[in-house]
Amino acid sequence: MSRPFDLTLYLVTDPRLVAARGLVATVEAAVKGGATIVQLRDPDAHGRALVEQARALKALLAPLRIPLIINDRVDVAVAADADGVHLGQDDMTPADARALLGPERILGLSVGTPAEFAASDVGVVDYLGVGPVKATGTKKDAGAAIGTSGVTAVRALTRLPIVGIGGIDGALAAEVIRAGADGVAVVSAICAAPDPEHAARALLSAVTAAR
Amino acid sequence: MSRPFDLTLYLVTDPRLVAARGLVATVEAAVKGGATIVQLRDPDAHGRALVEQARALKALLAPLRIPLIINDRVDVAVAADADGVHLGQDDMTPADARALLGPERILGLSVGTPAEFAASDVGVVDYLGVGPVKATGTKKDAGAAIGTSGVTAVRALTRLPIVGIGGIDGALAAEVIRAGADGVAVVSAICAAPDPEHAARALLSAVTAAR
Repeated sequence: MSRPFDLTLYLVTDPRLVAARGLVATVEAAVKGGATIVQLRDPDAHGRALVEQARALKALLAPLRIPLIINDRVDVAVAADADGVHLGQDDMTPADARALLGPERILGLSVGTPAEFAASDVGVVDYLGVGPVKATGTKKDAGAAIGTSGVTAVRALTRLPIVGIGGIDGALAAEVIRAGADGVAVVSAICAAPDPEHAARALLSAVTAAR
Repeated sequence: MSRPFDLTLYLVTDPRLVAARGLVATVEAAVKGGATIVQLRDPDAHGRALVEQARALKALLAPLRIPLIINDRVDVAVAADADGVHLGQDDMTPADARALLGPERILGLSVGTPAEFAASDVGVVDYLGVGPVKATGTKKDAGAAIGTSGVTAVRALTRLPIVGIGGIDGALAAEVIRAGADGVAVVSAICAAPDPEHAARALLSAVTAAR
């Protein structure tokens, strides 16, 4: 069994969007506002920079008991002693990642469709990221938008916790929760907000109100 | 102590240069011609494709007792049970990688200058890749060419095995060995050759003759 985690408000970082404020300052504001879990995502960064970023975030998040998830790089997650890894469909298989991570670290998987769900070894996965709910500019390799009905379609297939992702703002957050997601993952809605703490607080309200 | 390895003729793969013939066929020809160690390098590939490529190469190389080294990705190396990892200066630190790899897997590090050598935790490293000896088009992020005198400069600092890399063909291979390298690493000289087996054989002759 994995460490406990809460998908309610899942922040995914974006290196360009946090550049002005700084990665750690943005995440700090977001968790102050209520982000419940944080994913470090920087697909163009080299391993050394990623490990350094992960360690900086871990120092911030561990005392707050907010889990730190690393996108894609299992080695970086273990080196920085992060809480888990999030995999896309092009990343290492969940089974391979689980073998490296051990049973306690959190393992998430992106799934866009019931077909992707069926083709994935979800038995070793702790949660699913389902999307993109809406088309977005922050992830070039994301598939076609699946809408809230796409969330409902995956929801029907599994009891795993699900976080909706892709173009989610306050209004859409409520719809995603009503469609069956346990939480919402956001990038721009927090990272590009003039006040990330306030943005997180508003999103958290939208999610809790929709439950 | 790491597994035994022989740097005499070190093949580094390039995805574009092997595309026509195929990765496994190119490596197979190269080891027939005498390549003594092989590094899988494909910096743009996603984790899943890398693990698949690594497993295919391992199936070829393990019975021949030719070590398979993975560029950068420690997680891919462990998932595919490769023999080791080669790190650049921007990759995870050697100490972090060694902690993940355990004591037996081979760990290589790229070093361009005595200053880089001094700044690196070479105590956990099994060999050094020293270069680029000559400027080359296959590695965009390589530093300035160091020439054979650059090899000699690093040679003077350590008893670690050294492989010269960067723009090495048959004529330069002999010079690199005489400059103090234990072997030569090549990309284009084998991957782009019309006959990789023949190219490997010629390079091997050049290295052994220069010793």
